Amino acid sequence: MLTFETQVRVRYSETDQMGYVYYGNYAAYYEVARVEMLRSLGTSYKEMEAGRIMMPVLDLTCKYVKPAKYDDLLTIKVSIRNMPSLRMKFDYELFNEKKELINIGATTLVFIDMDKNKPCFPPQDFLNRLAPHFEESR
Amino acid sequence: MLTFETQVRVRYSETDQMGYVYYGNYAAYYEVARVEMLRSLGTSYKEMEAGRIMMPVLDLTCKYVKPAKYDDLLTIKVSIRNMPSLRMKFDYELFNEKKELINIGATTLVFIDMDKNKPCFPPQDFLNRLAPHFEESR
Amino acid sequence: MLTFETQVRVRYSETDQMGYVYYGNYAAYYEVARVEMLRSLGTSYKEMEAGRIMMPVLDLTCKYVKPAKYDDLLTIKVSIRNMPSLRMKFDYELFNEKKELINIGATTLVFIDMDKNKPCFPPQDFLNRLAPHFEESR
Amino acid sequence: MLTFETQVRVRYSETDQMGYVYYGNYAAYYEVARVEMLRSLGTSYKEMEAGRIMMPVLDLTCKYVKPAKYDDLLTIKVSIRNMPSLRMKFDYELFNEKKELINIGATTLVFIDMDKNKPCFPPQDFLNRLAPHFEESR
Repeated sequence: MLTFETQVRVRYSETDQMGYVYYGNYAAYYEVARVEMLRSLGTSYKEMEAGRIMMPVLDLTCKYVKPAKYDDLLTIKVSIRNMPSLRMKFDYELFNEKKELINIGATTLVFIDMDKNKPCFPPQDFLNRLAPHFEESR
Repeated sequence: MLTFETQVRVRYSETDQMGYVYYGNYAAYYEVARVEMLRSLGTSYKEMEAGRIMMPVLDLTCKYVKPAKYDDLLTIKVSIRNMPSLRMKFDYELFNEKKELINIGATTLVFIDMDKNKPCFPPQDFLNRLAPHFEESR
Repeated sequence: MLTFETQVRVRYSETDQMGYVYYGNYAAYYEVARVEMLRSLGTSYKEMEAGRIMMPVLDLTCKYVKPAKYDDLLTIKVSIRNMPSLRMKFDYELFNEKKELINIGATTLVFIDMDKNKPCFPPQDFLNRLAPHFEESR
Repeated sequence: MLTFETQVRVRYSETDQMGYVYYGNYAAYYEVARVEMLRSLGTSYKEMEAGRIMMPVLDLTCKYVKPAKYDDLLTIKVSIRNMPSLRMKFDYELFNEKKELINIGATTLVFIDMDKNKPCFPPQDFLNRLAPHFEESR
């Protein structure tokens, strides 16, 4: 399992009149977490698209445990439990500054060859960067 | 079961550089659908909050079947399968102009007494408006 | 001068914790107005891009006169004062349900040939659709 | 004059199908810059609202010089040229990683007493924190 943590500060634009982060905005927080995880591996999602592979989202689940509020500094813990194949699943846990779990989420993304517009396997370099984190579980 | 349909036109602001509607933006489409459903019943979510009851979202699921694209006129079919109690579940199906199913979602909302900041039952008037749609299933 | 009116209903996602529409969200409302104006002329911005011309925004001004609030049905009046050349200017006035002026805005867009990545003149068909609305001022 | 710099990484959610940051999203970047500037002064906008003063935006201008793109690490330089009175003006300059100026903006905010719903002067503590930065210009 590969785990990575990053932080986001809640913006005013992300709140709604309930004074909470709007429930649709967690998807962007999840995106920040998975993008920064890829960067921590020495690659990036931007490079992936430059290599003509894009990763649209197939499914999303969010469980809202406690509200995130304006100006909160949230910690997002993102995990990959399995080496990706045609698909890649990310799990998320969000914590507020009191270290309370406030949100649990998951997304499945698919690798798409942008030229053929078809699912494809991830680039070998990408798999090589992930592999060392999964060796112990073999 | 109560079912209602409404339409949204995809805005440029809602697309991302993949040329698809950003996966986090469907949550706002779901919101439009449930709000317009309440309006069709002769009430509104705005009135609910004016009556000091708010309805934050407890969980969200989205399955992205086909991409929604810029300027698409989407039809959102929203359904309530059961009379709400402390919670209320909405199911969504989105269709593009070719009547293809492009997205399936669900949200569970909870009724919160804003003064006590505690879960509560829905207002009686609200239940009265819903009840006729569920009588056949008694 | 060409003038067109359209309506948008304020979404919960567009409010912020002040209980107002977030100040950055008016840009999307302006976009809805200009897109629907083009549609009313028998063309569309989508067609423009399909014809390999895009229209990025060069400048934006917004004046916030009164707050727009959740569930308000806003009327957006969009005007073009001059036939476009390399650039096209749109002016906006937003009104709430009491017909109070709540927001004044303007955007200048530029026509860009997507293949050359350079400014270009608008398509002739587009100019032909606009011209009748400006003839009286010749 | 008080000047402060902060950085934002462009999120996928903030791009549009042109592959640029959507023109309405710069408003949120400006917000990040002014909020972080206040934090650098030892206060925060959150505290301001906790003290029952809010700061809605009165006007906004944006000039889009070059596009910001996905994953760009933008530097936002925010400046206050004058001590605030009932209003407070912020100027913004955004730079990409090549240190190219890509965007110029300005916002005027007004101090509102949330209990009276009327304009008010900024809190004395807030003025005290700002004053040292403007003394040389007296």
